[in-house]
Amino acid sequence: MAVRIAIVGAGSGYMPGVIRGLLHRSADLAGSELVCHDTNAEHLELMARLARGMFAARGADFTVRTETTLKAALDGADFVFTTFRPGGLPGRHLDESIPLRHGVVGQETAGPGGFLMACRSVPVLLEIARVLEEVAPDAWIVNYTNPTNIVTDAVSRHTGARIIGLCDQNIGDTEMWAELLGLPADGLEIDWIGLNHATWAERVRLRGDDISAEVAARLATLGPPDAAATPHRDPIRMAEVGRALGVLVNSYSKYYFFHDDVVAELRAKGTTRAQDIMAMLSGYYAGIAEQAALPDPDPSGERGGGEHGEFAVDTICAIAGDEGRRMIVNTRNRGAIADLPDDAIVEVPAVVGRGGPTPLVMGGLPGPVRGLTQAVHAYERLAADAAVTGDERVALRALMAHPFVRSKRVAEAILAEGLAAHRADLPQFRGTPAAAEGVPRP
Amino acid sequence: MAVRIAIVGAGSGYMPGVIRGLLHRSADLAGSELVCHDTNAEHLELMARLARGMFAARGADFTVRTETTLKAALDGADFVFTTFRPGGLPGRHLDESIPLRHGVVGQETAGPGGFLMACRSVPVLLEIARVLEEVAPDAWIVNYTNPTNIVTDAVSRHTGARIIGLCDQNIGDTEMWAELLGLPADGLEIDWIGLNHATWAERVRLRGDDISAEVAARLATLGPPDAAATPHRDPIRMAEVGRALGVLVNSYSKYYFFHDDVVAELRAKGTTRAQDIMAMLSGYYAGIAEQAALPDPDPSGERGGGEHGEFAVDTICAIAGDEGRRMIVNTRNRGAIADLPDDAIVEVPAVVGRGGPTPLVMGGLPGPVRGLTQAVHAYERLAADAAVTGDERVALRALMAHPFVRSKRVAEAILAEGLAAHRADLPQFRGTPAAAEGVPRP
Amino acid sequence: MAVRIAIVGAGSGYMPGVIRGLLHRSADLAGSELVCHDTNAEHLELMARLARGMFAARGADFTVRTETTLKAALDGADFVFTTFRPGGLPGRHLDESIPLRHGVVGQETAGPGGFLMACRSVPVLLEIARVLEEVAPDAWIVNYTNPTNIVTDAVSRHTGARIIGLCDQNIGDTEMWAELLGLPADGLEIDWIGLNHATWAERVRLRGDDISAEVAARLATLGPPDAAATPHRDPIRMAEVGRALGVLVNSYSKYYFFHDDVVAELRAKGTTRAQDIMAMLSGYYAGIAEQAALPDPDPSGERGGGEHGEFAVDTICAIAGDEGRRMIVNTRNRGAIADLPDDAIVEVPAVVGRGGPTPLVMGGLPGPVRGLTQAVHAYERLAADAAVTGDERVALRALMAHPFVRSKRVAEAILAEGLAAHRADLPQFRGTPAAAEGVPRP
Amino acid sequence: MAVRIAIVGAGSGYMPGVIRGLLHRSADLAGSELVCHDTNAEHLELMARLARGMFAARGADFTVRTETTLKAALDGADFVFTTFRPGGLPGRHLDESIPLRHGVVGQETAGPGGFLMACRSVPVLLEIARVLEEVAPDAWIVNYTNPTNIVTDAVSRHTGARIIGLCDQNIGDTEMWAELLGLPADGLEIDWIGLNHATWAERVRLRGDDISAEVAARLATLGPPDAAATPHRDPIRMAEVGRALGVLVNSYSKYYFFHDDVVAELRAKGTTRAQDIMAMLSGYYAGIAEQAALPDPDPSGERGGGEHGEFAVDTICAIAGDEGRRMIVNTRNRGAIADLPDDAIVEVPAVVGRGGPTPLVMGGLPGPVRGLTQAVHAYERLAADAAVTGDERVALRALMAHPFVRSKRVAEAILAEGLAAHRADLPQFRGTPAAAEGVPRP
Repeated sequence: MAVRIAIVGAGSGYMPGVIRGLLHRSADLAGSELVCHDTNAEHLELMARLARGMFAARGADFTVRTETTLKAALDGADFVFTTFRPGGLPGRHLDESIPLRHGVVGQETAGPGGFLMACRSVPVLLEIARVLEEVAPDAWIVNYTNPTNIVTDAVSRHTGARIIGLCDQNIGDTEMWAELLGLPADGLEIDWIGLNHATWAERVRLRGDDISAEVAARLATLGPPDAAATPHRDPIRMAEVGRALGVLVNSYSKYYFFHDDVVAELRAKGTTRAQDIMAMLSGYYAGIAEQAALPDPDPSGERGGGEHGEFAVDTICAIAGDEGRRMIVNTRNRGAIADLPDDAIVEVPAVVGRGGPTPLVMGGLPGPVRGLTQAVHAYERLAADAAVTGDERVALRALMAHPFVRSKRVAEAILAEGLAAHRADLPQFRGTPAAAEGVPRP
Repeated sequence: MAVRIAIVGAGSGYMPGVIRGLLHRSADLAGSELVCHDTNAEHLELMARLARGMFAARGADFTVRTETTLKAALDGADFVFTTFRPGGLPGRHLDESIPLRHGVVGQETAGPGGFLMACRSVPVLLEIARVLEEVAPDAWIVNYTNPTNIVTDAVSRHTGARIIGLCDQNIGDTEMWAELLGLPADGLEIDWIGLNHATWAERVRLRGDDISAEVAARLATLGPPDAAATPHRDPIRMAEVGRALGVLVNSYSKYYFFHDDVVAELRAKGTTRAQDIMAMLSGYYAGIAEQAALPDPDPSGERGGGEHGEFAVDTICAIAGDEGRRMIVNTRNRGAIADLPDDAIVEVPAVVGRGGPTPLVMGGLPGPVRGLTQAVHAYERLAADAAVTGDERVALRALMAHPFVRSKRVAEAILAEGLAAHRADLPQFRGTPAAAEGVPRP
Repeated sequence: MAVRIAIVGAGSGYMPGVIRGLLHRSADLAGSELVCHDTNAEHLELMARLARGMFAARGADFTVRTETTLKAALDGADFVFTTFRPGGLPGRHLDESIPLRHGVVGQETAGPGGFLMACRSVPVLLEIARVLEEVAPDAWIVNYTNPTNIVTDAVSRHTGARIIGLCDQNIGDTEMWAELLGLPADGLEIDWIGLNHATWAERVRLRGDDISAEVAARLATLGPPDAAATPHRDPIRMAEVGRALGVLVNSYSKYYFFHDDVVAELRAKGTTRAQDIMAMLSGYYAGIAEQAALPDPDPSGERGGGEHGEFAVDTICAIAGDEGRRMIVNTRNRGAIADLPDDAIVEVPAVVGRGGPTPLVMGGLPGPVRGLTQAVHAYERLAADAAVTGDERVALRALMAHPFVRSKRVAEAILAEGLAAHRADLPQFRGTPAAAEGVPRP
Repeated sequence: MAVRIAIVGAGSGYMPGVIRGLLHRSADLAGSELVCHDTNAEHLELMARLARGMFAARGADFTVRTETTLKAALDGADFVFTTFRPGGLPGRHLDESIPLRHGVVGQETAGPGGFLMACRSVPVLLEIARVLEEVAPDAWIVNYTNPTNIVTDAVSRHTGARIIGLCDQNIGDTEMWAELLGLPADGLEIDWIGLNHATWAERVRLRGDDISAEVAARLATLGPPDAAATPHRDPIRMAEVGRALGVLVNSYSKYYFFHDDVVAELRAKGTTRAQDIMAMLSGYYAGIAEQAALPDPDPSGERGGGEHGEFAVDTICAIAGDEGRRMIVNTRNRGAIADLPDDAIVEVPAVVGRGGPTPLVMGGLPGPVRGLTQAVHAYERLAADAAVTGDERVALRALMAHPFVRSKRVAEAILAEGLAAHRADLPQFRGTPAAAEGVPRP
C-alpha cells in the first residue's frame, strides 16, 4: 500500500528511529512517499539525505521529498506524523527545571512541565489541523507530540481533523513487568487502561491464556528486584507500588507515589534530562552527517529507541492496510473505560483499521487508582482548555487540579514563571489582562 | 490446537453442517476429539458414523466418540456446542401455530413462539451448565440453541459457566444488503448492533474503507428489488424498511414493520415451517444412513446451510487459537451499545480470543429503531426470568412487553395455550398455583 | 406576589377553569395582571368579561387586559399560560378519526393523533418562544398545549425559553387508584414516573408512610371493580393491567394493552370525542355570555374540570413564590429516571421553586413497562424533530416507531392523510418534495 | 408527633446542643421520649439531669430515660442519634498529631486522621445497626459520628439499617460566603454538592431568585476580606480559593489547596485541637453539674455550637412529620451528581420526608474540583472497606489514594503508627498477618 506520509519535525533526533520503523515495514509500504518538513532547513536536508541513503542501502521502495512550508508538506498527505518539540530542548529544560524550583516534579509530559509543553504544542497542532482541512481533509494525524493525550483532546474537540495519539510506554512497561514477575516477555499481553502515562492493568494474558489470577498472586508476594540487576530505580518502585496497590502500574507511577523522593533525586542530580540530552547531542548531527555520507548508513546514536518509530509505522500500516490490529492507543473513550467520561481521550486497547481506532470495552479502573486517574483526567481537560484559549485563570485551575501541585501558591508561582519563560512560544496567552484577573505575573 | 468438543444434540439434522464446519478448519484443529451426545441413540450413532466417514475420506485428524449420559459427554470438554431443540420439530410446530391462531406472528425465535422455545431451552442449558461446573468448569458453551440471547442471558446470570451466543444471521443479511445496494459481497463489513434478530447498522466498510455515507445515499433512493430476481419477499421488505428508516435492517425486521401482512401470509400458507421440515425430513435419516455407508459420504440434504457450522467452528478456533478475530456475537454489553443496559446480552462486533469475546465500543443505536430495540430487550429480560423461575406472572408480563403482542387478552390466551401444549417440557412451570394469581389456565 | 400572566388561547373553553384556578390562589397572587390573547376576538372579549365579573364578585385583586397581537400580549410577562388548540376541535376530530380509519387508536395526545397535534402545536410554541426572547426573556411558559412533553421538548431544545410542561392526569389517576385499592384519596401520594400519559408507579405513600408493600399485596389480588359503581371501563382496565404487571398504571395504559378493543369501541361509538364536544359547545358561548352578564357569574359548563386551572396556577405560585413545592411535572430528565436519556423530557416528581422544577432522583422504571416507555420516548424524540423540521421522512419514522402503529403501510397511510387534511396548519411541511423521497402523498 | 429518640453518646459535651435543638422543636415533638445511653455512667446521668431540668424549665413535654445497655437503649426507637467519639478526645489527639509528624494535615475527619477515626467509628455503628435489626428494624440512624459519609457508606452497604448522615458545615459555609460576597445571609440558599467536607457550589439563590451569575461576577473580582474583621484565616483562604477556581468552596478546601501552609501552622501552634478542648473541658462537667442543679439551667459552655443539635432535630422532624423539607444531607447518590457513582454516599440537597432523603438532580461537579472530589470519593470507598474488614492492605491503599498523602512511604508510616496507637479500639484489624502481606508493622 503506497501512501504519502508527511513528517513534521523531520529534522529532529527522532528521525533515525522513524526511518528504521519505515524499513521494518518497507515491504508493506512499498511505493510510499515521505514528505519531510522542519523549521531547521539544515537538519531537514541532513535527515532526508540519511533517509534516502538508508532506504537505498536496504532496497526500500520509498521516495523522500523535503518541503519548507507546512502547506506544501501536508498537501495530499494520507498520514501526518508529528515529532517536533516547540521550544526545542531549551524549552524542555525550562519545563523540567521551573517546577523543580517549587518542589514539584519537573517532567516532560506529566505535571506542570507537561502543562507548559501542552501550551506550546497545542497551537502548532491546531495550525496543522487547519492546514489539513484545506489540503488533505482525510489525512490521519499520527501524533507523537507530547503530551499526546492533551494534544489529541484539543485537536479532536476543536478541529475536524482525524487524530490518533501514540505512546510506546505500554511496550516498555509490559517488558519491565515481565521481568519483575518472572514471566516471558514474548506473548505477554497486558490490557493497560487509563490515561497516557497514567495507565494501570489488572488483566494479563500469556499467549492468549488469562493469567490475571497468577499475576495477582505473584504481585502480592513480590519482593524488591535484584538491585544489582536493576541499575536504576524505576523497576524497584514499580514493583513496590504495584505490590502495595495490587495493580500493575505504569513506570510514571513513581511520580505520583514517590513524588518527594523523585524531587529530591532530580535536585541532587543537578542537571535536567534536557541538559543531558543537549550535551549528548553536541556531536549528534555531525555523526548523522558522517553516516549519511556512507553507502550503508547506520545511525546508532538516535534517541527514543527504535520502538517509537516502529509503533508509529505499525499504526500507519494498521490504518492503511485495514489490519484490525489490536493496539494500545489514545483515542476518544465512548464508554470503553467506565469511570472516565465518554468524551475523554483515554489510553486503551483498540482495534485499529482503516477507520482508525475502535476501543474495546474494558470496564472500570482498578479501585486503588480510580480516583487518581479521574483527577488526572480533570486536570487534562482544563489543561487542553487553557492551551487552546490562553486563559490564565483556566491555566491556574489546571495546575491547582494536578495531583503533583494542588497548592494555590505553588501553582501560581510555576504558572507565572512558566508563562514568562516561554512567552515567545505562547501566542495564545498574550491577550489576557492577567493582572486584572488576580493572577500575578512576574 | 487439539481440543475436546462436546456436541449436545449431535443426532440432529444440523450435524452434517457441523461436520463440514470442522472439515473447513481441520488443519487448525488436528488431533481434536468430538464427543457426541443425543437423547436419540439411533440418530446419535448414525451421525457419529457419518462424521467418522467424512473425516476419514478427507483425511481429517479427528476422533469421534459417542456418550449417552450428559456427564460423560461433557467430561473434560474444552467446548460444548449445542444444537438440540427441546420438544423437537413438533414443539416448533406448536410455537409457530399457537401465536398465529391469535393473530400474532408464530416464529421460532421472535415473539411468543420464541418465548415458548426459551422456556424449553433454558432449563436444559442450566442443567448443562450445572454439570460443567462439576466436570469441565473452564469449558466454553458455544450456544446455537434458540433463542440464543435469552439462553445466553439466563446461563450467564444464573450459572458460572462461560457462554458465547452465536447466530449467523448477520452473514446472510450482509450478503443480502450487498445485493440490494449493488455492492460486492466480498470485503463488505457491516457493524450490526442490537439484539439477536433485532440488529441494525449505520456503519459499513468495503475492504476497510468507510462507505457509510455512500450507503446512506444509495439507501435513500433505493427502489424495490427486481421481483423476478428475488423469488421471495424478504429482500423486498428489507429494502423497503431500510429505505424508510434510513438504516440497514436485519431480515427479521419484516416481523416488526409488516407484522399483519406476515400473519396473513403465514395463515394463507396453511402449514408451519416445522411441518414443512418434518415433511422433508421423512427420508432424511435414511439418506444420511446411505451416505454414511459410502467411502466418501456427501450428505447434501443437511439443513441450516453450511454457515452455522463454519461460524461455530470459527468461533471455537478464535478462542482456542487466541486469534483476536473480529466477529459479531452475543455477549454481555458492558457499555458497547450506549442505549442498552451494561448487563444486557447484545449482538455486537467483538474481538474473540482465548478469553472469549470482548465487545468493541459502538455508540448508540440508530434513532428510528432505538425504542423498538429497547422494548425487545425489556421483553427478553422478562422472558429469561420467566424461563428460569417458571413464574407465570412474569411470563405474562414478558408477552405483554413484546412488541408483537402487547394486548393483555392475546398474551393470556397464547400463554395459556402454550404452557398447556408444552407442559411435558416445562418442568419449571408446574409449581405456580397460577389460578390463584389471577392468570387463567386452560 | 403580583405577577403578569399572559394567557394565549384565552377565548377557549378552558378559560373558566383557569379563572377558577386563579380565584383559588387570589390571596397569593393579589395585584397580578392577566393579559389575554386569542385569535378569536369575540371569544376573547367574552372570556375577559367573564373573568372581570368573577374576580369582582369574589373580591379578587386582579386586572384583566386583552391584546390582539402576540407581541403585545407577551410583553413583560412573567408567565405565559398556553391553552390554545391549533386547528380547533375540527382539527382534533381529524386527529381522532384518521388513525381510526386505519385500525389505530385515534387520540388527542397519544399515537398518530397526538403526532398530528404536535405538528400543529410546535410551530406556534416556537413562535411564542421567539417573541418572548424579544419582549420577556425571563418568562416561564406554563404549557398545557398538547402533547405537552413533545411541545416542551421542541421548545427547550430549539429555543432559549424557559418552559414547564403540565398535565393533571396524575391527580385523577391517583384518585382512581385510591378507589380501586380501597385507600383514602386524601394524603395518598404516588410517585408517577415516565413520560406524559405513559407514567407508572411502584412507590406509594399514605400521609408520608411508605405503603408500597401493602399496595403491591392489594394489587396482586385485586378483583375487577364493581361494574355497577364504575359506569365506564377505564378503572376496570387500569385494575386489570395494574394487577397483571404488578405496577400502578396510568389511565392511558388501556391504549397500549387493550388497543384493539379500544379501536373497536371507538368505531362502534360512531362519533369522535371532538364531535361530542362540538355538539355540547353549540350553546356553550351563549351560556358563558349569559353568566358574564350576571353580578356573580358561575359558568358551570366549563370543560376540563377545575383541576387543570388549579394545577397551572399552583405551578405559577410555586415558581413565583419559590415554594419548593413537590409536584409532578414535565421537565428535562438529567438522571432522575435511570432508564431514559438525560435530555429526555420526562414526567417526574420535582421540587418547583423560583428556578423552575428540579427533578427528584427516582431510579429505574418498573421492568414490565420499561421497554414500552423507552419506545414511546424514542417516538417522541422523532416526533419533536419532525414537528420542528417538517421532514416527512422523519415523520414516517416517528409513526413507525410508535407502539400503536409500527406497520410501515399503516404509518404511510395515516401520515399521508394527516398531512393533507391539516395542510393549512402545517407550514413547516410544505417544503419537502416528499414524493421524491419515497413517501407517497395523497 | 411523639417519637422515641435514642441518643448514643448522651454523656458527651455535644448533649447540651442536642437539648437545645429539642427545645427549638418542642412543640412539634411534644410527648416524645429521649432514651440516653453512654458508656460513662456519670456523664450520662449528669446530662439526663440537665435535660430534665431544661425541659421542665421551658415547659417542654419530653420524658428522659437512661439506659446502660445498647439493646435497652435502642429498643423500640424511632430515631437513633449518634454523637459519641470512640477513643474520646485522647483518640482525636492521636488522629491530629500522627499525620502531622509525617508532614500531613492531622484532622478529625479529613485525611489520615479521619481515616483512623473511621476505623474506630465504623465497628461501633455496625454494632448499633446489628442491634437495631433485632429491637427496632424501622428506626432511622441520624448519624453525626465522624467521618459521617464513610460511616454512612459502611452502614448502608453492610447492614439493612436506615441511616442519614448529617453535617452542618453547609450552614456555616453559607453564612461565611454571604459575608465574603456582601450578600444577606437570610434567604441565601447555596446548592452545595459533593462529599462531606468536600462540597462545592455554582448555583446560588437569594430568596428564591437565581443569583448565580451575580455571584460569579462578585467572585471573579473578590478581594481579600478585611483582615481586621476576620480574626482567623479561614475566610481569607476560602475567598482566595473560591476566586481562583471560580467556584464557591467549603471551608475545608484550605486543607487541599493550602496543605503545606496549614501543616506549618498546626506545627507552629504546638497543641492539637483535641488538647485545646481537653484543656477547656477540665471544668466543663463541673459547670454542667452546677447548671443542672439550677431551676432554669443555661449551659453556655457546650461545644459544637447550637447548630448541630438544631440540624439533627430538624432532620428528625422532617422525617417524623413527613415535611418534605429541602436539606443538605449525606445519602446514596443514585444519579443526583453526575460525576460520582450511583452508589456513592454524597452530600447533596435532598427532600426529606417520612421515607428519608430523596436527592434532587444536581448535574455535574464544577470542572476545577471534579477530579479532586472523585479522588476523595475513591479514597472514601477504600476507607470504608478497610474500616469494615480490617484489611491492612486496603487501609494502605486508602491512604495512598488520599490527596493529602499519596506517598507510599508516608502512608505506610502513618498507618503503622496509627494502627498501633489505636489498637485497643480497632478489633477488626487484629486478624491480618500484616507482616506477611508486606505492610510493615511498628
